[in-house]
Amino acid sequence: MQTLIIVSHPTLADSNAQRFLWESLPADGVTWHHLESVYPDGRINREAEQQQMFQYDRIIFQFPFYWYSSPALLKQWQDVVLTEGFAYGSGGRLSGKEFGLVLALGVHEREYQAGGREGFTLSELTRPYQAMAAKCGMTYMPTFAISKFDYLNDSKKKALLIAYQQYLTKENDASLKTAENWFRSQLQSLGKAGLSEADQQLVEHLIAVLEDNREHLDDLAWTLAQMEGNQLG
Amino acid sequence: MQTLIIVSHPTLADSNAQRFLWESLPADGVTWHHLESVYPDGRINREAEQQQMFQYDRIIFQFPFYWYSSPALLKQWQDVVLTEGFAYGSGGRLSGKEFGLVLALGVHEREYQAGGREGFTLSELTRPYQAMAAKCGMTYMPTFAISKFDYLNDSKKKALLIAYQQYLTKENDASLKTAENWFRSQLQSLGKAGLSEADQQLVEHLIAVLEDNREHLDDLAWTLAQMEGNQLG
Repeated sequence: MQTLIIVSHPTLADSNAQRFLWESLPADGVTWHHLESVYPDGRINREAEQQQMFQYDRIIFQFPFYWYSSPALLKQWQDVVLTEGFAYGSGGRLSGKEFGLVLALGVHEREYQAGGREGFTLSELTRPYQAMAAKCGMTYMPTFAISKFDYLNDSKKKALLIAYQQYLTKENDASLKTAENWFRSQLQSLGKAGLSEADQQLVEHLIAVLEDNREHLDDLAWTLAQMEGNQLG
Repeated sequence: MQTLIIVSHPTLADSNAQRFLWESLPADGVTWHHLESVYPDGRINREAEQQQMFQYDRIIFQFPFYWYSSPALLKQWQDVVLTEGFAYGSGGRLSGKEFGLVLALGVHEREYQAGGREGFTLSELTRPYQAMAAKCGMTYMPTFAISKFDYLNDSKKKALLIAYQQYLTKENDASLKTAENWFRSQLQSLGKAGLSEADQQLVEHLIAVLEDNREHLDDLAWTLAQMEGNQLG
C-alpha cells in the first residue's frame, strides 16, 4: 500500500492540527505533498504531478474545510492535473486507485446535519469529490474528519493518531483480519526502531498474542464452515 | 435591483458562451466583474471587494463548472473576501441579498442525475454554495445552467438571452405580474434607444397591449375574489 497525501493549506506552519498529522505519519508507504510549499508561485507542474501519481494505490486530499471546499491551490491542482485521457475517459490512469478526504473542521462535526449550524452533512457537501472519484474510476473512502483539533485532550489525540494512520495505510475493508494484520505490521516496524530490550520483549509478546488469537479464530472459522457443510449436506 | 456578476474563467476570451453572456447584458443595473482580468496576479483586494458588495442586491457567481466547482480564483475570492464579521456572524453585511449561480456545463444537463454520466444532480453538487448563501443569510436562487452552448441553434440562443437577462435583473418570484412588469420596463428602455419611428410605434403598441391585459386580469381577479367572498358568506 503506497499512499500519496496531497495537502493544501495556505498557512500550514500555523496549524496545530496539520503539524500533529505530519508528526503522526507512518514511517513507510506514505508521501506528504504540501502544494503551497512545492508551488509557492501557484504554477502546478502537470507532468510531474501526473507522473508521481502512477506509483500510489491511495490518493488523499487533506485540507482545512474552507467554505465547504478546499483552499484554491488544490482546486487549481485538480483543474491542471486531472485532464481527460489521464484522469478519466479512454486511457484514464487513476482507475482502481482509492481516494479519500482528510478534513479539518473549525466547528464540531455534529453541526453538519439538518438543523445543525451548517445545515448539511459532510457527505452532501463533499459530493464534488465523490463525483470526481467516480468519474476517475477511483474507490471513494469514507471521509476522515477532524473537528476542533485544538480542543482535543491527550487521549483523544492518541486515538486520532491511530485512526489517521489506519486511514492512510490500512486496507479499506471492515474485516477483523485486516485490522489485526495492520496492527501486527505496525508492531513489527516498531520492533526495528531502537527500542529498549524490555519494550522489544513487550512488542514480541503482543505479536505472539495476536498470532495465537488469529490461529484460534481460524480454527473457529474452519469448525463453523464444517458445521454449515454438514447442515447443507 | 442592482446586480453584481462575479465571473471566474481562466481563458475567458476563448469562451463563446461567456462572450455571448457578456453581449447579452442589460444596459442598466448590472456590473460584470471578471476576476482573472482584475487580478491577473491572483492577489484579491479584500477591502475593495467588500466595499463594492454593499451597493448590490443580487450577487451572481458565473463560471465554467470545472470538477463540479469553480475555477481556483473564485475559491480564493471566497476565502479572502467572505470573512467572519463581514459575510457572516454578528455584523454580517450580506444578509438579505440574493445569491445565484450561472454555470456553463460541458455536458448536457440531463447527465446530472442518478444514472446519468455525472451521477449527481446540480442541486447536490452545488451544496457548498447553498450552504455558503445560508451562512451569509442570503436568499439562494435556483441555479441557471447553460449546457453545451456551442451546440445551441439561434432560436435557443435567443431564448437563453432573455432567460439570462431575467435571471440577472427580474424580481425573484414566480408571479405573472412580476414577469409583465419586467417585460414592460425592458420595452420602455428599448423605446429610448434610437429606434426607427415604426419600431417605436410597435414598442408602444406592445406596452399598451400588456397594460390592457393587466387591467383585464385585475378585473378577473377582483371578480374571483367577490365570488369567493359570496361563497364564504
